[in-house]
Order: sequence, then structure tokens, then C-alpha cells
Amino acid sequence: MTAAVKVEFHFDFGSPNAYLAEIALPGIEKRTGATFEYIPVLLGGIYKATGNMSPAESLRGIKNKPEYQRLETERFLRKHGVTKFNYNPFFPVNTLMLMRGAVAAQFEGVFEPYFRAAYHHMWEEPKKMDDLEVFRAAFQASGINIDRLIVRAQRDDVKQKLIKDTNAAVERGSFGSPTFFVGDEMFFGKDSLRDVEELIVDLSSVRQAKRV
Amino acid sequence: MTAAVKVEFHFDFGSPNAYLAEIALPGIEKRTGATFEYIPVLLGGIYKATGNMSPAESLRGIKNKPEYQRLETERFLRKHGVTKFNYNPFFPVNTLMLMRGAVAAQFEGVFEPYFRAAYHHMWEEPKKMDDLEVFRAAFQASGINIDRLIVRAQRDDVKQKLIKDTNAAVERGSFGSPTFFVGDEMFFGKDSLRDVEELIVDLSSVRQAKRV
Repeated sequence: MTAAVKVEFHFDFGSPNAYLAEIALPGIEKRTGATFEYIPVLLGGIYKATGNMSPAESLRGIKNKPEYQRLETERFLRKHGVTKFNYNPFFPVNTLMLMRGAVAAQFEGVFEPYFRAAYHHMWEEPKKMDDLEVFRAAFQASGINIDRLIVRAQRDDVKQKLIKDTNAAVERGSFGSPTFFVGDEMFFGKDSLRDVEELIVDLSSVRQAKRV
Repeated sequence: MTAAVKVEFHFDFGSPNAYLAEIALPGIEKRTGATFEYIPVLLGGIYKATGNMSPAESLRGIKNKPEYQRLETERFLRKHGVTKFNYNPFFPVNTLMLMRGAVAAQFEGVFEPYFRAAYHHMWEEPKKMDDLEVFRAAFQASGINIDRLIVRAQRDDVKQKLIKDTNAAVERGSFGSPTFFVGDEMFFGKDSLRDVEELIVDLSSVRQAKRV
């Protein structure tokens, strides 16, 4: 057992790399004893605030670099034994409804099943999840009481929470997805997971030592 | 002892990330038994052929991302105990003369001292190394017979070798610096060093097993 360290996973369902990175989190939690706090942020808002853009945009027209990104994704899939991942043919999907739904699900105490269903319908059996009827049918098929969440997601506290967390992420240095925080240390990208884990272990050891 | 695997380090003296990555190579060689082949390439040529550009250019005007790159560099310096690194105030330095010199030095059997001197004067006590007089004085101060190499670097076999290796790198998938090849598997960036090392170990084990 290691002492608890505050670790955060900032995600937007629209980011395939956030989907992939998340697959590795339970293993890190098991090995380190840390628990990731899942924080919904609006990637579109982060891009707007920073002037950053998705790799799909920034790599357009560049030779070899998109191919290398695909190779890195394939290596990640092999390394982590990921078999269910499928590119979403409707990419980029506007995720405002999905992300407000995530905040509403947190407020209502049903985040875990909502999160799993959202990722399933975005990156395992991918659908056009910014279409309201597709969205409703998908969540209903996964046993989520989605109509209740849609109503809840319209309330101002949900909208404000998502805006506040997105702005706070940018103020702390975020520019894309996935982003991790270990205490105040920021890490970007699915390739930083080993560094994230190492820092959790280091900080845990320090805390452990201080307690003894 | 592990069996030899063909591993390549493609570098341009103008790339700070290639300088930093190179610092980790002797450790990988020691732990794995592999020996990196150092291949001079012209980063400007790779950028031109692929439409890619340096991070300094591509991150310009983007909030938080350049700061994160600096943070990653600082983390790398700490992790590898690098104390001599200094940003080159004349960046970007045109490296055509430096890289032709590297090929000439390989042809003349004086690559190792030339390489060390070039990196020293680019990233430890940085100078404007695309200025011929600065270039000559710097290498002379490091005990290199630079005038002989300058003459040698003008010969066609040197120029053609640099062009050929640069084009071949692009054909194999290269788009930037540093780039590594482990057999035919390409890796980009100083953050891929752990993956490079793991694949060397994996391939060595396979070869070792086949021999037994």
C-alpha cells in the first residue's frame, strides 16, 4: 500500500488518445494505490483558449508524421492488449452534449456506467454521438436512463462546472487531451503514462517516509 | 551479453532534442550490448521533403504547449543528470557545413572527436556555427584539423552521401530529429528512448533464443 496522491485524468470523449490512455489507468491504480479523479473538460474550449488544434488538423498534408502517429497507436494497442478500439468514422464529433452528460452523471452518482457507455459508443462501436437521436438510442441500449441525464445536463450548475473545469485546466497549463496531473505536475499524452506512474510512486514513497 | 541488433541514430547537429537524446545512448549500449550507428542527415532536407517543421515554428503562438515542451526538456535534463546543456541563442543554425563535415569526418576516421566537438560548440558552449570563421575557430580550439575536413567536405562523395542518407531516411518514414531505427522499426523523439531500448532487448532475446 502506498499513500494517496492526488491524481487527475482530464478527458473529452472526442479524443481517441484519451480513450486509449484510460485503458491503462486501472493498472496504474492497482500498482500504486492511487485513484484517478476523472475530470470532464471540453477539448474544443481548450483548443479555442490556447490556439492549439487536433493532430488530425495539425498533421494534415505532412508526409510520414500521420503514418507514425498511426504506428504509435498500433504499438499502444498491442502493448496494452486493446482489442475493442475502432476509429470513429464521424470524427470529429461535437462532444458538448456528451461532456455535459458526464458532469450531470457525476452530479447524479451514475458516472461510471455513463462513462463506460459513452466510450463504448464513441470508440468501440462508434456512432455519430452528436446526433441527439443516435445519442439517446445508444445510451438507452446500454441501460442508461439518458432522458433524465439530458434534462439534468441542461441545468446551469452542469454547464458552469464544465466551463469552470475547462478554464481551470487551461490556467494550469493544459492544451490538449489526454492530460494528467500528479499533484501539480502536468503530463500530456498517452505516452506519458510511464512518467505519470513513476511520479506517483516517487511522491507516495516520500509521503510514506514522512509518516514513519 | 545480448546478440547484436542493427540500431541507427539519425541526427542533425541543429536539433537540441537530438543532442539530448544522444546523451542516453551510451547507457543503452552498455545495458543491451547494441551499438548505435550514427547517421548524419540534413533536417532541413527532411522538413522540405515532408512539409514538416521544427517545434519552434509549429508551436509559435500556441498557449501552454511551448511551456510544456520546456518542462519536458527540464525533466529530461534532471532524469539524465545533464548539466552542460545550453540553448543556442543563434537557433536555428544552418547545419549544412556541420553535417557535411560529419560525413567527411566519418570518411576520414575522425568522427568521434568531430562529433563531440560539434555538439560542444552547438549545445554546451553554443556558437553561431554557420559562420565559417566561428566554425573554424571552434573546431581548432577543440583540437580538430578542421581545414582538412572543410576541404574534404567539398568533395562530391560527401555531398552525395548526405543527400542519399537524408532521402533514404524520408523514404523509410522519417519526418524529424532525432529518429531511431531498431531493425526496420522507426522511433521518433527523445521520449521514445525507453521503447527503443525495450525493442533492442526483445529482438536480442529472440536472436539469442534462436542460436541456442
